[in-house]
Amino acid sequence: MNQKTSPFTANTATVDPAAIKSLPCSSKVYQVGSRPDIRVPFREISQHDTPSHFGAEPNPPLTVYDTSGPYTDPDTRIDIRKGLPALRQQWITERQDTELMPGLSSQYGQQRLGDDKLQDLRFELSRQPRCAKSGANVTQMHYARRGIITPEMEFVAIRENLRREIYLESLHNSGPNGADMARRLSKVHPGMSYGASLPEKVTPEFVRDEIARGRAILPNNINHPETEPMIIGRNFLVKINANIGNSALGSDIGEEVEKMTWAIRWGADTIMDLSTGKNIHETREWIIRNSPVPVGTVPIYQALEKVGGVAEDLTWEIFRDTLIEQAEQGVDYFTIHAGVRLPFVPMTAKRMTGIVSRGGSIMAKWCLAHHKESFLYERFEDICEIMKQYDVAFSLGDGLRPGSGYDANDEAQFAELRTLGELTQVAWQHDVQVMIEGPGHVPLHLIPENMQMQLEHCHEAPFYTLGPLATDIAPGYDHITSGLGAAMIAWQGTAMLCYVTPKEHLGLPNKKDVKDGIITYKIAAHAADLAKGHPSAAFRDNALSKARFEFRWDDQFNLGLDPDTAREYHDETLPKDSMKVAHFCSMCGPKFCSMKISQDVRDYAKAKGLEEQAAVAEGMKEMSIQFVQQGSKLYQKA
Amino acid sequence: MNQKTSPFTANTATVDPAAIKSLPCSSKVYQVGSRPDIRVPFREISQHDTPSHFGAEPNPPLTVYDTSGPYTDPDTRIDIRKGLPALRQQWITERQDTELMPGLSSQYGQQRLGDDKLQDLRFELSRQPRCAKSGANVTQMHYARRGIITPEMEFVAIRENLRREIYLESLHNSGPNGADMARRLSKVHPGMSYGASLPEKVTPEFVRDEIARGRAILPNNINHPETEPMIIGRNFLVKINANIGNSALGSDIGEEVEKMTWAIRWGADTIMDLSTGKNIHETREWIIRNSPVPVGTVPIYQALEKVGGVAEDLTWEIFRDTLIEQAEQGVDYFTIHAGVRLPFVPMTAKRMTGIVSRGGSIMAKWCLAHHKESFLYERFEDICEIMKQYDVAFSLGDGLRPGSGYDANDEAQFAELRTLGELTQVAWQHDVQVMIEGPGHVPLHLIPENMQMQLEHCHEAPFYTLGPLATDIAPGYDHITSGLGAAMIAWQGTAMLCYVTPKEHLGLPNKKDVKDGIITYKIAAHAADLAKGHPSAAFRDNALSKARFEFRWDDQFNLGLDPDTAREYHDETLPKDSMKVAHFCSMCGPKFCSMKISQDVRDYAKAKGLEEQAAVAEGMKEMSIQFVQQGSKLYQKA
Repeated sequence: MNQKTSPFTANTATVDPAAIKSLPCSSKVYQVGSRPDIRVPFREISQHDTPSHFGAEPNPPLTVYDTSGPYTDPDTRIDIRKGLPALRQQWITERQDTELMPGLSSQYGQQRLGDDKLQDLRFELSRQPRCAKSGANVTQMHYARRGIITPEMEFVAIRENLRREIYLESLHNSGPNGADMARRLSKVHPGMSYGASLPEKVTPEFVRDEIARGRAILPNNINHPETEPMIIGRNFLVKINANIGNSALGSDIGEEVEKMTWAIRWGADTIMDLSTGKNIHETREWIIRNSPVPVGTVPIYQALEKVGGVAEDLTWEIFRDTLIEQAEQGVDYFTIHAGVRLPFVPMTAKRMTGIVSRGGSIMAKWCLAHHKESFLYERFEDICEIMKQYDVAFSLGDGLRPGSGYDANDEAQFAELRTLGELTQVAWQHDVQVMIEGPGHVPLHLIPENMQMQLEHCHEAPFYTLGPLATDIAPGYDHITSGLGAAMIAWQGTAMLCYVTPKEHLGLPNKKDVKDGIITYKIAAHAADLAKGHPSAAFRDNALSKARFEFRWDDQFNLGLDPDTAREYHDETLPKDSMKVAHFCSMCGPKFCSMKISQDVRDYAKAKGLEEQAAVAEGMKEMSIQFVQQGSKLYQKA
Repeated sequence: MNQKTSPFTANTATVDPAAIKSLPCSSKVYQVGSRPDIRVPFREISQHDTPSHFGAEPNPPLTVYDTSGPYTDPDTRIDIRKGLPALRQQWITERQDTELMPGLSSQYGQQRLGDDKLQDLRFELSRQPRCAKSGANVTQMHYARRGIITPEMEFVAIRENLRREIYLESLHNSGPNGADMARRLSKVHPGMSYGASLPEKVTPEFVRDEIARGRAILPNNINHPETEPMIIGRNFLVKINANIGNSALGSDIGEEVEKMTWAIRWGADTIMDLSTGKNIHETREWIIRNSPVPVGTVPIYQALEKVGGVAEDLTWEIFRDTLIEQAEQGVDYFTIHAGVRLPFVPMTAKRMTGIVSRGGSIMAKWCLAHHKESFLYERFEDICEIMKQYDVAFSLGDGLRPGSGYDANDEAQFAELRTLGELTQVAWQHDVQVMIEGPGHVPLHLIPENMQMQLEHCHEAPFYTLGPLATDIAPGYDHITSGLGAAMIAWQGTAMLCYVTPKEHLGLPNKKDVKDGIITYKIAAHAADLAKGHPSAAFRDNALSKARFEFRWDDQFNLGLDPDTAREYHDETLPKDSMKVAHFCSMCGPKFCSMKISQDVRDYAKAKGLEEQAAVAEGMKEMSIQFVQQGSKLYQKA
């Protein structure tokens, strides 16, 4: 953890400089939609021209999905004490189905607001919370089912297309070789999508339809107007979530905001604030006001803190108050362990690692202590009634997920999953958006069954898994053990992956751990997109491979997920800038570099029109003579 | 790279202290075979008793596969100037089919030996090289096909069983709960093995049969008697290889030996010396004399150095001399790119990243320059004649492997693969052992085709892949991008995985990179073993999960692949030793830890015999009353 020299105060809070630094050769670009206030952000990575000996062609900039929000927009002045611009505010008010509350509705919220001791920590809120007008339902699913395409849906459609058409056009127009470049750089291996259907072009109507049928969610609390909308669903890009949050043993508000801005910089599509320590309410306010991505929470954690950590003392009333408190702040999705039911709890008795979900074990304890069915289960419709007033989505918690390969796919796990499917349909009766949480720890060969069961019992609601870890033998490396399972389960249809850091099972992650977890999960998500045959995902791989082949070192670094680290690793053995045009690297040195040697092959084959095998026998002899005559030089003008 | 204070000299060479340090709570144990000189090493990890509030039972030590050789045997005194004990010498001489050479046979070897300037670098060899007697064939395949079970085969059979029976017995005998412990700790999810057949007990006869049919290889040059034999094959534990070796831009002999001892410490089953810089011959001698694992090379690299880096100047004679030079030193397997054939070379012209294999591009260049078929292909049987005299195995090189997802599964790649299949059968006519090298860069969904093609065309010879990388977008993290593909392709039948470090594509790996690459590949290999349903692989996962659940922190660290890192990460936020018995970690703190809470559940369910659902309704009420009456205490004696 960063050692701060001074504790956090509301007056002096500043943004982490590391978060607002531009990524190399990157600019923030916006694609405008059907109205000027639909401005969808992307990051555009510019490239250098191909060197003359490789063909001297320009390389148009590549567009990539960008979760980093206004922090990386040089035209935006960041002041975290004021929060981000409320970019969705107009869309919300336009719908005229919400009203401003006179003040906070929750008891707890009012209590905190009235506590002067918190003055120095409190985010200075300048607006009141909103709520649906009486009888109204403000969820994106509700609008979608009524055939309405909201600005949020249009935003998301533009976002998912990654400016594909603009890129292809820029390739075509890049020069005499344009058509060929476009063809090569846009090549995608047909996928194996296990029944998903990824359209070549995502339209707002497609988005509406996916949301209406529950196969995707657009998590967007009306009290979190700062979000840049995003979609979670099998037929869209695989998304990742990063967890942040303090614990009883560490971390202050400033550090948590820093973790958020750091996480979105590296690619987190949503974040979850899992705080269990001090000032949970205030910490969350600072995070939400400054987060351009949806924010999820697990309300039972804060509820537990309110009863001094004694699970048996939890009540529906306290939980309800917590839901309202958090919904009014703008939490976009709640993890709710409504599937941890009384009769399932004893099924975990024969497990190796019992119940590893915090929320799950809290509810298990409550059920046992009271000998009653879970109040989350019994009050589920009451919860729906609250959530539809703010458009908070459900993340139906997998409280009985396996915490070891030993427990994978057991009776308890699937009993809960079936209940989550049942609850999904209840939520959908209220047009409340739902995603389903998933495991955990699952050996690779048991993943197909998981996916199958989830699709079947949960009616294609998006699946949101934690890994899963494919083996338990590597504490310290669980970002990797879980990355294996995550890639596989995402390929088979999981819509969002909750990251795991190297600190999993061991302690609280620091900034480096957060980054390692995110990069690993971006890799897993992207590998899945490729395997599913996403129409544009491979553009980045192709562009990077071209840069690599042409020894455009800076472009290779800049096109990667982590340009800083790639550059640093290269510079360890070849630091001089002159080496960045080096046509080799320290791995093999100048004589042995195969890229150098194979460029020869290509030049001569091309010079002789030898892509066609028919010409091979004929041309080879000539080619070899000429090759030797030219002194076997490695770089020739084409 | 380590900054050495003084350059390497033969007289002062010492072993890296980090390599001989014991791993925590670990002892070297040996299982003796049918004769006293068959002593198979393992690492035994001792554990602490389960704490009383969890049941107070002893936890027998776990046995794990151990590649670290005599370095971690406290009873062995290491002097790298003398090399390791020649543990296989007696077995070799007993076979009476080899003879000592009067001196080195290769021109180059003699030349180096005669060069006084190399005195300070040269390993002081105390024995002459061996060769097969005239007309004899000394490969393990030759013996296997004649129905002979060699001591090497028996060694390997014992090694692959991981002392399973001893462990199960120790569990049974551990206490009153023994039978239950044995059942739980030995539980294995039935695998999905894609047609592999992993026997519950590996017998020497099974090993012989797998080798005889070419489905496995036992790489064991008669001039490398220091090896602890190991087997590479689909029906055995998945193995990993680590690459070491200097380049023109760095690294001295001492550093290379250190990389080897470091690599085997963390689990490398073989190493490849890919040196391309100075003193390749001397460097290799030091490595082989001190390596307990098989050593592979790519002879064309050194051959190229001998012709000053000019590929066109390579000749069969120089290559042949290099083979003999290296075989006499004891190289256990040669990567030979005999599938890079003249007509295939132009197929790479349309690729994005051409030929990325160093050896492949060298041969491609040679073919083009001479307009002749590859001399490796044309002289293949001559190569076999050499290799069978020493028992050097082929690693048939994938010189035309794809270097980008774009190029995956293309015409060039599979043309070469079919040729490798053809050459496999030629080699088998000479009883020369063969494994087939594989890609590379392959998106996940194209992996099944790779495996299918290889099994079909190469007649089930073991597959040995480099990754493959599932995506190209993360330079700096290619141990992870390739770990995804490696786990998948190993699950589907690949026998050995060549590791990739974070420095891939960027530079030369240092010790930390070597470790990161190895741990990642141990994870991938083990995840595959689990998915295939290996009968004992899950024992480690189960033991670790049990330790985790019982808060036996030290045991959790020690049972993992990297105890040092696990312990270090834990200590970052909870450093005191007192915290090692802490029943929580900094992630959640004392109130929230789900492990604590779920132990309750288990205790009460067990106390009431509630594993059976029938008892649930009845017992739950009682349980809850008692639970509350006991003050909801978390730890109760069972």
